[in-house]
Amino acid sequence: MWVVVGDSPRAQFEGTTAMTDSTTDPARPGSVPPERTPQLSSHNRTKVYVAGADGARVPFIEVSLSDSPGRNGAEPNRPVHLYDTSGPGSVPTEGLPMLRRPWIDARGDVEEYEGRPVNRRDDGRAAVRRAGPAPETFPLSDRRPLRSSGGPVSQLRYARAGEITPEMSFVAVREGVPAELVRDEIAAGRAILPANVNHPESEPMVIGGRFLVKVNANIGNSAVSSSIEEEVQKLTWATRWGADTVMDLSTGPDIHTTREWILRNSPVPIGTVPIYQALEKVDGTPEELTWDLYRDTLLEQAEQGVDYFTIHAGVLLRYVPMTARRMTGIVSRGGSIMAAWCLAHHTESFIYTRFEEICEIMAAYDVAFSLGDGLRPGSIADANDDAQFAELHTLGELTEVAWRHDVQVMIEGPGHVPLHKIAENVAVQKEVCHDAPFYTLGPLTVDVAPGYDHITSAIGAAVIGMHGTAMLCYVTPKEHLGLPNLDDVKQGMIAYKIAAHAADLAKGHPGAQTWDDALSKARFEFRWEDQFNLAMDPGTARAYHDETLPAEPAKTAHFCSMCGPKFCSMRISQDVRDYAESKGMDLAAAVEIGLKEKAVEFRETGSKVYREPSTT
Amino acid sequence: MWVVVGDSPRAQFEGTTAMTDSTTDPARPGSVPPERTPQLSSHNRTKVYVAGADGARVPFIEVSLSDSPGRNGAEPNRPVHLYDTSGPGSVPTEGLPMLRRPWIDARGDVEEYEGRPVNRRDDGRAAVRRAGPAPETFPLSDRRPLRSSGGPVSQLRYARAGEITPEMSFVAVREGVPAELVRDEIAAGRAILPANVNHPESEPMVIGGRFLVKVNANIGNSAVSSSIEEEVQKLTWATRWGADTVMDLSTGPDIHTTREWILRNSPVPIGTVPIYQALEKVDGTPEELTWDLYRDTLLEQAEQGVDYFTIHAGVLLRYVPMTARRMTGIVSRGGSIMAAWCLAHHTESFIYTRFEEICEIMAAYDVAFSLGDGLRPGSIADANDDAQFAELHTLGELTEVAWRHDVQVMIEGPGHVPLHKIAENVAVQKEVCHDAPFYTLGPLTVDVAPGYDHITSAIGAAVIGMHGTAMLCYVTPKEHLGLPNLDDVKQGMIAYKIAAHAADLAKGHPGAQTWDDALSKARFEFRWEDQFNLAMDPGTARAYHDETLPAEPAKTAHFCSMCGPKFCSMRISQDVRDYAESKGMDLAAAVEIGLKEKAVEFRETGSKVYREPSTT
Repeated sequence: MWVVVGDSPRAQFEGTTAMTDSTTDPARPGSVPPERTPQLSSHNRTKVYVAGADGARVPFIEVSLSDSPGRNGAEPNRPVHLYDTSGPGSVPTEGLPMLRRPWIDARGDVEEYEGRPVNRRDDGRAAVRRAGPAPETFPLSDRRPLRSSGGPVSQLRYARAGEITPEMSFVAVREGVPAELVRDEIAAGRAILPANVNHPESEPMVIGGRFLVKVNANIGNSAVSSSIEEEVQKLTWATRWGADTVMDLSTGPDIHTTREWILRNSPVPIGTVPIYQALEKVDGTPEELTWDLYRDTLLEQAEQGVDYFTIHAGVLLRYVPMTARRMTGIVSRGGSIMAAWCLAHHTESFIYTRFEEICEIMAAYDVAFSLGDGLRPGSIADANDDAQFAELHTLGELTEVAWRHDVQVMIEGPGHVPLHKIAENVAVQKEVCHDAPFYTLGPLTVDVAPGYDHITSAIGAAVIGMHGTAMLCYVTPKEHLGLPNLDDVKQGMIAYKIAAHAADLAKGHPGAQTWDDALSKARFEFRWEDQFNLAMDPGTARAYHDETLPAEPAKTAHFCSMCGPKFCSMRISQDVRDYAESKGMDLAAAVEIGLKEKAVEFRETGSKVYREPSTT
Repeated sequence: MWVVVGDSPRAQFEGTTAMTDSTTDPARPGSVPPERTPQLSSHNRTKVYVAGADGARVPFIEVSLSDSPGRNGAEPNRPVHLYDTSGPGSVPTEGLPMLRRPWIDARGDVEEYEGRPVNRRDDGRAAVRRAGPAPETFPLSDRRPLRSSGGPVSQLRYARAGEITPEMSFVAVREGVPAELVRDEIAAGRAILPANVNHPESEPMVIGGRFLVKVNANIGNSAVSSSIEEEVQKLTWATRWGADTVMDLSTGPDIHTTREWILRNSPVPIGTVPIYQALEKVDGTPEELTWDLYRDTLLEQAEQGVDYFTIHAGVLLRYVPMTARRMTGIVSRGGSIMAAWCLAHHTESFIYTRFEEICEIMAAYDVAFSLGDGLRPGSIADANDDAQFAELHTLGELTEVAWRHDVQVMIEGPGHVPLHKIAENVAVQKEVCHDAPFYTLGPLTVDVAPGYDHITSAIGAAVIGMHGTAMLCYVTPKEHLGLPNLDDVKQGMIAYKIAAHAADLAKGHPGAQTWDDALSKARFEFRWEDQFNLAMDPGTARAYHDETLPAEPAKTAHFCSMCGPKFCSMRISQDVRDYAESKGMDLAAAVEIGLKEKAVEFRETGSKVYREPSTT
């Protein structure tokens, strides 16, 4: 039934998890055998765990490097630790271990209870109408949910109380920053740590402008395609390529069941747009939506463990007409649902009028708000217009309401924005939303390249990340054209991991450049295997190199196909350096003192400059 | 012998050229039958020529659009003209028509002469050593070259004299700007119009910060791969995807002959790095390079028609040691050749000491300088360092020397630069190089994604373009790993056309947004075929749409696969607009006056909101 998408199907879903793995090498604390790791593993690229506070074991991909050739013998290179989102690897029918459950229990502020009964309608109208048996229920779905036994159980509440939770400690190790910084940023509302008490499988992560820029991947079925298995595959595939959170946007059959499988197997926080499911429950007719139905859907998803909800509570009735003369009207699906409801009822939506009740629900499970931008621009022409900014102001007001309830908040942003308007967009968001983290879809910087919108938007994503956006929602090449397949998910993820890392470098995140430096040093020294292993996509880098120079010796060759073996610019500059060192002097001094004989010597050693690779 | 890479092989190289085409439809001035056009042609995407001054016919791709559905019947949409670099299409063995020859002759300042004889060594050491016959000489290669009959014959000289040449008029129509602006920008040195008198086949284009951002594609063989046919294919392929100039960086066999085939078939200016060929003539040994050999190579290439030379005259002896402690030393091939020469001879290079003589040669043919950045950074760690900026200052001094000789100049830039250092790089370049146009390779904004460097660098390219860089040298996915094939050329070109257009929008180039607006309007109105035809890559957009919804009716459907037929956010916002219009009132007014019955009416028209596509 399960088709595995990793390099090594056997390894991915076999064996016990790292948490309880008795074969872990005691000599390297936290390391696990590479054959167990689902993420791009190879001999020199393995998953390791670094010990944190509270017994936490924080995952990294460790890339071991070969030595550099030094004048006085080999010089070792320190291994590089890369942030790792792939999780410990799961057997889909068993789910992941409940990493956070002991921490949640230890706080003593939640209780198990008899959850809301699941009914067929929860799986959506397509499932209701479909003949045949119900979909395969997740084996553990009879687990009783947790909720607050008193006030809010959110990371925001703990942070405000000055507490550093195990989740915050975990994140501090992942980010390479002090735990106090994590706590303080969460307490100030400038960061969120999405962690529903009913999704204890998730590895804690933080979303905030002071931290590494995160990437979200959207998955989910629609009425016309996909299955539960495919969606769990996409989840595993997306986290393998670095997805920090995943949004399940399913609107097709088996919505509830698909989400259960996804949650139980997800090592990253899961977000949803609850109005999508609610709409399926009323057969796709927005005006039939009610508060009771929506509230029931929020509870259903909170009990399952969804970590953040996109809620388009800023679509006010008076803002809808502002979109009428736009180039592309309302392009947000949630925004258009709420706009249709508001127009049909000629009143403000229940998600706006009942916002405080929503906050109470979310505080009881620690579900974070992702305040949706239902009026985001869908084209360059509509960027930064009145409708967009009017809604943004309302989101800022709602942020303060949520914070009063100790609920974590991030703010969604566009969409389509030309490069020169990005800085303004971020500045306005920071001001009116009181520095709540910004979470943007792209933005696309041109409208004219359907089929390449992972690139049109990676440009905008990098720039908006540089200006302080905390999380980027990826866009795949199929945007505007169709539903992404596995390769589209990969292409979108890689484009966005590039954008996020470009922003991390621009923001000067501590340690971000270590990765670039390690790869560039490997490149300069022709350590090809190190360069491949350090690459964001080792397999593709290796394959491209193989296309021109397939032979194994080429992997150790001190040249590449661009210049060929006889001449190489990298080798010349190596020789410049070697020459200086061989003279036991600073090369600058050698040149400055103007000794003509140095030039003669350099020329005499010319044969070394162009040595054949076999002799090195 | 010739394998054609276009959509329509027959059309590409068949028939007479548009210039003399008697079948041109007189009813639409300048239009040519679509089956003659090599560029992405389809029924609604055809090449047309717009009349300019001096009888010039300026090429565009005209995209015809279907009508919009309006409340009072169909509303026509104006056709969109896209900038077109694909040229009139050539039979490779015949070459392109000499578009500019009449203009050159009319100026009366050049003379034909007996050119430098071609010898076997001009084809490089690989050709010299190879057994067997010489490569097929281009049939027209016995054409006698032109050169100045006295004084500079450069567009810079004419512009300074206040003249608007036919080339400038042509460019003004292409750019949609006044011809006086073109002349004035060239006269001030802020733009160049590369136009060697021996490359009369080229369609004039301009490179400058006030104009559309241009993209250069690098092609060229190496010792380990490729052939003349493949290189001409890459040329045609690159210009089809929008290359504004092409650099032939061949270092393998048949260098001279390959270049001749490229020039005779190129509708865009051709650039080279003459030191590459010179190095092949001395068997790849930099220290054997001499001024006489280099000068002879410049003359050889100027006679063939190369439009701009990359010359690394800023690599001074005292700068070389500044690279010794870099992460990645010297990564420019030309830079490392010059550095090796300087170190070996312990003196400044002949291209620096003989710079004025070089200017005289270039002025006699109107070859433009592309002053090379031999010390550009090859990694994030080395960006904006002393070596880079020291060389840049020297390039600024050389710019003034070249301008004294009426030679056009642009300045090459990096390379690898993190996002936050890009603005500084452009600012320094503008200041020290007196606003001479900047021409950058990317820059890559991260080092860690080999295999995806078209994306890592498109991000940097868009941003550096926004800050005023005039031309972007593309980077393909194979950068750092191997030589690009045809698909890599396409991927690099599209990523860079996206970056250039993003920069054009950010700079507010007149008319740039017309393209986005037309596509977004088509998208909003579900005019799928119009959306495909307006796309940068129509075939890919159409194919992606087909993957999910292959049936022909889906191309006229008022929905897409993301939401399915029953619900569509775009349709809801259309309905918001329709609703307002149907009430004969401003929707804002309808909402503001708060008539509850309007809400009832909207609800009653709900069936229209969710009408099935077959009924529209």
